[in-house]
Amino acid sequence: MASIGTKRDAKISLNTVERLSLYRRALEELSHEKIQYVHSHRLAALTGVTPAQLRRDLATFGSFGNISRGYDVRQMSATISRIVGTDEVQNLALVGVGHLGRALLSYKGFEERGFHVAAAFDADPDKAGRVFAGRRCYSMDDLEEVISTLNVRILVLASHPQGLQDAIDRAAAAGVRCFLNFVPKITSVPDGCFIEQIDISAKLEKLSFLSRQKVDQVSAVRR
Amino acid sequence: MASIGTKRDAKISLNTVERLSLYRRALEELSHEKIQYVHSHRLAALTGVTPAQLRRDLATFGSFGNISRGYDVRQMSATISRIVGTDEVQNLALVGVGHLGRALLSYKGFEERGFHVAAAFDADPDKAGRVFAGRRCYSMDDLEEVISTLNVRILVLASHPQGLQDAIDRAAAAGVRCFLNFVPKITSVPDGCFIEQIDISAKLEKLSFLSRQKVDQVSAVRR
Repeated sequence: MASIGTKRDAKISLNTVERLSLYRRALEELSHEKIQYVHSHRLAALTGVTPAQLRRDLATFGSFGNISRGYDVRQMSATISRIVGTDEVQNLALVGVGHLGRALLSYKGFEERGFHVAAAFDADPDKAGRVFAGRRCYSMDDLEEVISTLNVRILVLASHPQGLQDAIDRAAAAGVRCFLNFVPKITSVPDGCFIEQIDISAKLEKLSFLSRQKVDQVSAVRR
Repeated sequence: MASIGTKRDAKISLNTVERLSLYRRALEELSHEKIQYVHSHRLAALTGVTPAQLRRDLATFGSFGNISRGYDVRQMSATISRIVGTDEVQNLALVGVGHLGRALLSYKGFEERGFHVAAAFDADPDKAGRVFAGRRCYSMDDLEEVISTLNVRILVLASHPQGLQDAIDRAAAAGVRCFLNFVPKITSVPDGCFIEQIDISAKLEKLSFLSRQKVDQVSAVRR
């Protein structure tokens, strides 16, 4: 069977990276079920992607699989991990130990995906020095030092909106280039940095709004 | 001061609804700080929206505020709640009591925003009948009955990918029109239904991928 290899210097779009995450999750489920090989149409069905799209995405990484037996589940999963950089554990840090921050600290899914929440920070002096879900909470004064010591590459933001931009700017100056923002505020990041936004309440409020529209009005409010 | 009123039959776009959530969250923060009035430029700065956009959004709801004193913080917050439908508590239900499902059950932010997670479901028979973070976990067999009894309008999905589409289809047949999906799978919903996707791991993997790109390569992979 031909190996799955990444073509050198292949340009991977961010949409492809998002779909790679879907594929990898489906491959892990298959691996848990002790399934060794999977055909493209089955993997496409498991992820909700069209088979043509799946084949286009995988073609980016060169030769892959054989038509009669399908893709090697564990090999493809490992290749995707290597591409997205989760083949080794990466340290995250969390800013803000409120309701959402604590729920995120208790979420074991980060570890399963190769991310370790190594530290938490909070602007409230009463929280500094305490331990939440096994993680030491530091004062915001220690942000730069802890980020540097723990080699934090991604900062998860769950603070109050007020201190958000300041936390981003300081972390970016300390070398963090990637931010996962759960705070309901539109922010900016310096050049060369990236921020992804997740606003659970806004999604719920949007659904709440939609759930009150009459069915025949719904098409009018669709984007 | 002129009151904030919704124009009758005004068409509100979903982008506007998302920004209304941002405004409301900022207004609540201001209200906690005992601030009674806020000018448009200040509210725009707090949310990261441009002042022009903010004024356009609020113009949808008719007359609002007075130039010298600004907007009435509590009144505007209440108006937005009424528009998005969170002025009365709405019952949610959760499908899937794994790592993410439990973190969501422990998240107190839902209640603060006017949503009550009234029940949980899991396909694992060992979990049915148990209580997680104060919520009874039901068997998937009881989905339709519990949804109907508790008048669940929005279903939060955190199950394994396999049973996902079936859960959506059954809930939709039982009258649920809105879904908040945390499961890494592209799904479809019947006509007149809405689904919003939140994939925390995919966002992290995307950031992980980006954190490994050299700064000068980053513009090449931007969408």
